[in-house]
Amino acid sequence: MEVKSRAPGKIILSGEHAVVHGSTAVASSIDLYTYVSLRFSTPSDDQDSLKLQLKETALEFSWPITRIRASFPQLSSTPTSCSVENAKAIAALVQDLNIPEANFGLASGVSAFLWLYSSIQGFKPATVLVTSELPLGSGLGSSASFCVALAAALLAYTDSVSFHVNHQGWLSFGEKDLELVNQWAFEGEKIIHGKPSGIDNTVSAYGNIISFKLGSLTHMKSSVPLKMLITNTKVGRNTKALVAGVGERMLRHPDIMAFVFSAVDSLSNELTSILKSPTPDELSVTEKEQKIEELMEMNEGLLQSMGVSHATIQTVLQTTLKYKLASKLTGAGGGGCVLTLLPTLLSGTVVDKVVAELESCGFQCFIAGIGGGGVEINFGVSS
Amino acid sequence: MEVKSRAPGKIILSGEHAVVHGSTAVASSIDLYTYVSLRFSTPSDDQDSLKLQLKETALEFSWPITRIRASFPQLSSTPTSCSVENAKAIAALVQDLNIPEANFGLASGVSAFLWLYSSIQGFKPATVLVTSELPLGSGLGSSASFCVALAAALLAYTDSVSFHVNHQGWLSFGEKDLELVNQWAFEGEKIIHGKPSGIDNTVSAYGNIISFKLGSLTHMKSSVPLKMLITNTKVGRNTKALVAGVGERMLRHPDIMAFVFSAVDSLSNELTSILKSPTPDELSVTEKEQKIEELMEMNEGLLQSMGVSHATIQTVLQTTLKYKLASKLTGAGGGGCVLTLLPTLLSGTVVDKVVAELESCGFQCFIAGIGGGGVEINFGVSS
Repeated sequence: MEVKSRAPGKIILSGEHAVVHGSTAVASSIDLYTYVSLRFSTPSDDQDSLKLQLKETALEFSWPITRIRASFPQLSSTPTSCSVENAKAIAALVQDLNIPEANFGLASGVSAFLWLYSSIQGFKPATVLVTSELPLGSGLGSSASFCVALAAALLAYTDSVSFHVNHQGWLSFGEKDLELVNQWAFEGEKIIHGKPSGIDNTVSAYGNIISFKLGSLTHMKSSVPLKMLITNTKVGRNTKALVAGVGERMLRHPDIMAFVFSAVDSLSNELTSILKSPTPDELSVTEKEQKIEELMEMNEGLLQSMGVSHATIQTVLQTTLKYKLASKLTGAGGGGCVLTLLPTLLSGTVVDKVVAELESCGFQCFIAGIGGGGVEINFGVSS
Repeated sequence: MEVKSRAPGKIILSGEHAVVHGSTAVASSIDLYTYVSLRFSTPSDDQDSLKLQLKETALEFSWPITRIRASFPQLSSTPTSCSVENAKAIAALVQDLNIPEANFGLASGVSAFLWLYSSIQGFKPATVLVTSELPLGSGLGSSASFCVALAAALLAYTDSVSFHVNHQGWLSFGEKDLELVNQWAFEGEKIIHGKPSGIDNTVSAYGNIISFKLGSLTHMKSSVPLKMLITNTKVGRNTKALVAGVGERMLRHPDIMAFVFSAVDSLSNELTSILKSPTPDELSVTEKEQKIEELMEMNEGLLQSMGVSHATIQTVLQTTLKYKLASKLTGAGGGGCVLTLLPTLLSGTVVDKVVAELESCGFQCFIAGIGGGGVEINFGVSS
């Protein structure tokens, strides 16, 4: 019995930071995925262990089922926050693993795994293999896509879950079940991040494009098949400090910053209306791309005026500007990732050149389609 | 009989481009000057020629006084725009000079010289030597400072001009005469630029700091002794095209751009209130410098959102950012000059390093004090 799930990462197309001060932000799924394979043990397998294999770090963790069962005397089968008692039990289970310190955020990811697995599937012996196309801790929603893919794989085997067929064996959840996946994933995200906004897991679960403002979300489908070059500067960010820095700048310069945030709000609204408008009825794809490039350039300038840029981000901007490509940071800034729109008519030779130049600076490049579907599962795979 | 004059260049501290759309901008004099030495011919000199020597280009032009007199049958001695007829006469006088094409804007500068000289001093034989610390055509007001210095030297010998002593032999004009210098300089600027705003010559004539909005000017003195590193990228700008580009962006994104311009307006107002506030009563010089650095960074971001940056400007920003120094483009953008605040407590070693690094990129660096006095004349010099 095996199921594989995949859940996409996310980028912020516009409005990061300003969203904290009431502006609209726009997030999108990217077709880079975290994959989770769940295989329940058969009678010929080890019947008393739960195994977690993380392919990218080549790490494998294992717990005796009896120990897990003893750790959680009582569990709710509906999405529930991890109590302080259960958190202590998880900490004890994780502490024994001696996770290498170099592995960013791994302990909290493993904790989320233990919580979701035990809550949803109880104490069945199984092996869970996680692979990911997303860099960790770079603002591309790797932890959320892990939680969503995991919740999806775990829920796939519970009763009364309905699917519909997508493509090539991939199935997606019915509306109610998808919301359940999303709620469980959010509980996992809370273990990893403390107070996540819930945007990352929602984008990963539902896919497509989501605009959000003052806590309310609007789902939409893009009519423009955008492709982005995502450059990971590999500079670790302190998101909390960056958000606090913008807040302090707001206190020092309330008038200026209020206009900057209003500009971002208008920008996000203009972006969503371009993404939604039918193609090619109103504008051609190329015309839309040009408008989006201009909005990206403007958003980047506004982010710089908030003080969240970084020398490495400037290097990416400068490199892509040489090829007349528009870029903006995505997420918290201060390092992290930079988006560069790759227009439909751009030659592959130019893309190769830009990527080579960025990689020669020590950056990591990804090319991703924007606004695709959310989490999917597949019962037919054997990998 | 000899007089020497000097008139400062200018920088835009904040608000360039946005000022076209109704925001406040702030300009300042810089202590880099254009010098004009005027020596009327003595009986032992050539009595029938007017000579113009341009030290930086090692060019010398000469006209027979009789020819100049024949070219202008009637001239007004009060500031007057050059008529079409007179412009034709000037064009004929300039055409004969065979000015090398490589010398940017030289023909129009020589035209302005002929107009101001003939209008103010009539047809006296003389030698005029021009030297300048300002790069030509880089947005530092070189042409305006030339017109102001020239008008000042020419008016110094007219009747009823009153001076007061400044320092080391330098004199400044009384209020009424200074306005006359400024008006004549504006007429010269019109010959060079067609439709100048009048800001450059006003800053050069009056010095100090001027904020301007919708055509109205406010003069003020700075209480902060700011020092700027001015980096000339040497990339020639097409100011008209850049201004038009911002205008087109305004038409495409009216809501966003209106907020951007409002942000700039608030920023300029905040800057002037910092510059004016007494030191150290309210804030120390260092605190003021930090606030100004933050405003410069914000203005740069807003200018980038207007689309007037350039790869070379990014290079300067990135280089100075490495040394934690704040920079912004000044003037039209698209190349031109970049300002970097040099805080009072910054060590000379760091300044030397930054300058060396910028010069190794092929840029030209100047260090200038901000907000000093305007045009001055000196009767005691012999250089």
